Amino acid sequence: MIPIVSVVGKSNVGKTTFLEKLISELVRRGYRVGAVKHDVHGFELDRPGKDSWRLAQAGSAVVALSSPERVALIRRVSREMTVDEIALLMGPELDIILTEGYKRGDRPKIEISRQAVSGELLCSPNELVALVSDQEHSVSVPQFGLDDAAGVAGLLEKKYLRWGRFEDVTLLVDGQRVPMKGFVRDVFDRALRALVSTLEGTGEANDITLTLRRPARPTDSD
Amino acid sequence: MIPIVSVVGKSNVGKTTFLEKLISELVRRGYRVGAVKHDVHGFELDRPGKDSWRLAQAGSAVVALSSPERVALIRRVSREMTVDEIALLMGPELDIILTEGYKRGDRPKIEISRQAVSGELLCSPNELVALVSDQEHSVSVPQFGLDDAAGVAGLLEKKYLRWGRFEDVTLLVDGQRVPMKGFVRDVFDRALRALVSTLEGTGEANDITLTLRRPARPTDSD
Repeated sequence: MIPIVSVVGKSNVGKTTFLEKLISELVRRGYRVGAVKHDVHGFELDRPGKDSWRLAQAGSAVVALSSPERVALIRRVSREMTVDEIALLMGPELDIILTEGYKRGDRPKIEISRQAVSGELLCSPNELVALVSDQEHSVSVPQFGLDDAAGVAGLLEKKYLRWGRFEDVTLLVDGQRVPMKGFVRDVFDRALRALVSTLEGTGEANDITLTLRRPARPTDSD
Repeated sequence: MIPIVSVVGKSNVGKTTFLEKLISELVRRGYRVGAVKHDVHGFELDRPGKDSWRLAQAGSAVVALSSPERVALIRRVSREMTVDEIALLMGPELDIILTEGYKRGDRPKIEISRQAVSGELLCSPNELVALVSDQEHSVSVPQFGLDDAAGVAGLLEKKYLRWGRFEDVTLLVDGQRVPMKGFVRDVFDRALRALVSTLEGTGEANDITLTLRRPARPTDSD
């Protein structure tokens, strides 16, 4: 799995500002970073009346906007997606995913804390991999200053990124992730790689995705 | 593969307006529709200064915004994605994908034409599955009025959707789609379904996705 680390903190403490610095620093070091912004209040991604907004309003399940620099996909969901589901949508090419928010998630967390906002921490120390603050806290996790994105990047690198890209096997059955332990993962990995190697012209493959789809039910018109 | 149909036409002819009606009609009939908007001039999906914009500017390869109603993913690309690549990102749960534009693509096309804009067609008749216009054209493809979204929906249904959701096997190796014919598709389909059926608690599966990932190369710090 791609490592996912959540940057959390009380309101107005500077989470986005610190994330900006941390992402820049990781990108400078050559990593591919994904960012997830959690917004319970919804977001305004597109303007009413614009074409993409009209196509979404008409009932599209997904609207894609494609330009030579960016591609955006806006997907209607029936409930808020978990970070794991979002990570799968983000694709396998990332080295690390940083989330802003998700303080109730079970991912390792970096708390941002600022004296002017509160002297107390949001998280208990056992949830934290690092604390970023302008004051000393008596907790036994590595502490960094508000400007020390390089220090935090170094910690993440050592903890999650030092082996570069890692092997991974992900199985989704009808949208649900099926956890697999070592032996079973190996079976799936080797079986699919063996099948692919029998195809002409595929050469030595690194990343393989196989999707099977089956009709859920016949339509009424059948 | 999910059927992909392109809605094309000269500038200002009413492509988005017709697409809105067509999407509404297909959704009303129970289909899951994806829409792709092609915009060579780029798009403004988010406002400068907003948090998601800042996370993208900092260098994130992908930024996700998640709310209880929608999830949006904005991905940086090095070249414009093909419709097939976008279709894969959109996911396997759609019944049909309609694109606005992509007149140079090789997908079946519906041309929208309006006398006030031009008496000539953009496409040659052999590219078209339907023509939507306020004037008669002497081409041998089904023709519909500008308001006849129901007629076009009926045609798409008959041509592409009458069997409901269809079986599909998609294999991506290092990001490239590997085409497979009947027998080979069957082998992949049955082999993976057989493997999955050995796992406890997965039951009868419809859709299965298996992703394998392997380190491309060690990082410099190794």
